[in-house]
Amino acid sequence: MSVTTTEPLGTELTAHEVLASAGAMVEPALRVSVDSLGEPLRRMAGYHLGWWDATGMPVPGESGKALRAALAFSAAAACGGNRDDAVPAAAAVELLHNFSLVHDDVMDADPLRCGRRTTWNVWGINNAILLGDALQAQAVKMLSTRLPGHLIAEAITRLQTATLELCRGQYADCAFENQARVGIDDYLSMVAAKVGSLMACAGALGALCAGAHPRTVSAMEIYGRELGSAFKFVDDVIGIYGDPAFSDQCVGNDLRNRKKTLPVIAALESGTDAGVELADLFESIEPLAPEQVARAAALVEQAGGLELTLRHVRERLAAATAVLPVDADTRDLEQLARLVTVRDN
Amino acid sequence: MSVTTTEPLGTELTAHEVLASAGAMVEPALRVSVDSLGEPLRRMAGYHLGWWDATGMPVPGESGKALRAALAFSAAAACGGNRDDAVPAAAAVELLHNFSLVHDDVMDADPLRCGRRTTWNVWGINNAILLGDALQAQAVKMLSTRLPGHLIAEAITRLQTATLELCRGQYADCAFENQARVGIDDYLSMVAAKVGSLMACAGALGALCAGAHPRTVSAMEIYGRELGSAFKFVDDVIGIYGDPAFSDQCVGNDLRNRKKTLPVIAALESGTDAGVELADLFESIEPLAPEQVARAAALVEQAGGLELTLRHVRERLAAATAVLPVDADTRDLEQLARLVTVRDN
Repeated sequence: MSVTTTEPLGTELTAHEVLASAGAMVEPALRVSVDSLGEPLRRMAGYHLGWWDATGMPVPGESGKALRAALAFSAAAACGGNRDDAVPAAAAVELLHNFSLVHDDVMDADPLRCGRRTTWNVWGINNAILLGDALQAQAVKMLSTRLPGHLIAEAITRLQTATLELCRGQYADCAFENQARVGIDDYLSMVAAKVGSLMACAGALGALCAGAHPRTVSAMEIYGRELGSAFKFVDDVIGIYGDPAFSDQCVGNDLRNRKKTLPVIAALESGTDAGVELADLFESIEPLAPEQVARAAALVEQAGGLELTLRHVRERLAAATAVLPVDADTRDLEQLARLVTVRDN
Repeated sequence: MSVTTTEPLGTELTAHEVLASAGAMVEPALRVSVDSLGEPLRRMAGYHLGWWDATGMPVPGESGKALRAALAFSAAAACGGNRDDAVPAAAAVELLHNFSLVHDDVMDADPLRCGRRTTWNVWGINNAILLGDALQAQAVKMLSTRLPGHLIAEAITRLQTATLELCRGQYADCAFENQARVGIDDYLSMVAAKVGSLMACAGALGALCAGAHPRTVSAMEIYGRELGSAFKFVDDVIGIYGDPAFSDQCVGNDLRNRKKTLPVIAALESGTDAGVELADLFESIEPLAPEQVARAAALVEQAGGLELTLRHVRERLAAATAVLPVDADTRDLEQLARLVTVRDN
């Protein structure tokens, strides 16, 4: 499906291919890291990553898509570096991303992720906590053992700063569940922390591995953060309006569960009649019936929630593009930005 | 109380003072780290560390005891280094230790730690998971931002290796709960991983900060691991026979909860009549009544469980002492070894 805010340009690789290529490039390093975990953490990690089923039987298919790895590789390439040199950075951000997914699934009590049982749902909460802890450690170890010595301190400090931001963002996201009202600014800050932090880190580490100037590293950091926020806002739109045939996400689920995403918050805060009706719909505790979900989606649009969200997507993409160095080869980064708005999975 | 396996020697500082001194030395670095967490993680961390109550009101009293920090400081001193140089290492191992305590309390569903409500019991499981995640990140950041550049890669790799061992040890410990039978060797491996790993890391990092030779770093690593195991075995003894007036631990609790500690496992595996009677007592699901707890304690001793455990304590202490370099000033390290057997808290 496609949520188009700018016209997609003709490209050599599809968005799908860009992510799959990054996934294939980073996978060998991830496999070594996962293999070194020892059982049963190894099996849990490979299951979570989609490599095998819960019994350890390989699942046929291609490598997974790796957005954060792709960003690290693309930032390295934009800075004139070699993609191979960015493998430890790409693997570290993917490991950290998966640490956060495993723990988030526990905290959100999500029984499924992309149609598969979540790790805690298969192995229990305690083992999922341990798996997340181990993946966090492996992310750091990937950098401390595989990066050139002069890059290690900065790379690891950046990764740990991102981890702390992730924790703060996840705290805010959990807290929103119990808040009657969430402000738009609060939501934007949460997304910048929960999603933007690791994307920012991926961009910065890619640049760092290419030996980029500190100002360029900072630019790539901003690029990643803005791209991450834009990506999340588009996810929010897909969660309400996307085509379930072409999206991993269960369309309508967000509304059914009254999830306070940007379009919903913007609608609720709009002061419009549609916003008031949406608030009334959201008052009850029962899950919304299908016709209520459809009505809520229409109300979000009428109240201007969709429009405001797409404006934020455009603004974040513009902010990302604005920091790209004029003399850099930014084709890959632009390809990734296109991914934000055109999902061809 | 005192569990004496060797005669305590006259010392300038009591065991209590050695730990309190390390606690006071490491606390400023810990405070900076905790303050940078942001709310509410900051408040949760300081509560967990005993600095304030759940509302954030300071709790009067001295610094906490810091065994792992003390080991890092003592290893640095034994290698001719300056204790001050080991502050980042000492703070990192304390942060990592507290990460593991916070997550272990969640996994074990322990409502109290040292008579205070555990973090998850005050703030909920999700927040405790996040606090642990954040403390793990802060431990690494302490090293990546405060150690001299040439030490960072090795120090962080060692800390992450210890983290992974901790996770494996905690996995085994949780698994024992559901196993009908636990072998002595399985228990010894679990203790080496869950307790020994971070103590080993503390010793090694202290030596590393003092610029010690790699062989000396390895020796301090072994010293820490052996000391950690010895410490845990003495805890196991105190959990059964210790004097509740002088111990943090609730004496009898381990037996009441049928916890498979070394004295119990040794008794159950002894093939003696007392071991068989103990196994019968442990068959029921109900918590043991006070007279059953007393009987179980007597049976553990009759079956040789106490004797075997104290032998392991002596062996681990001998193995620790054996690796100390002959030319090093090991007074502090010997003081710590004395702490294992003489608890004067």
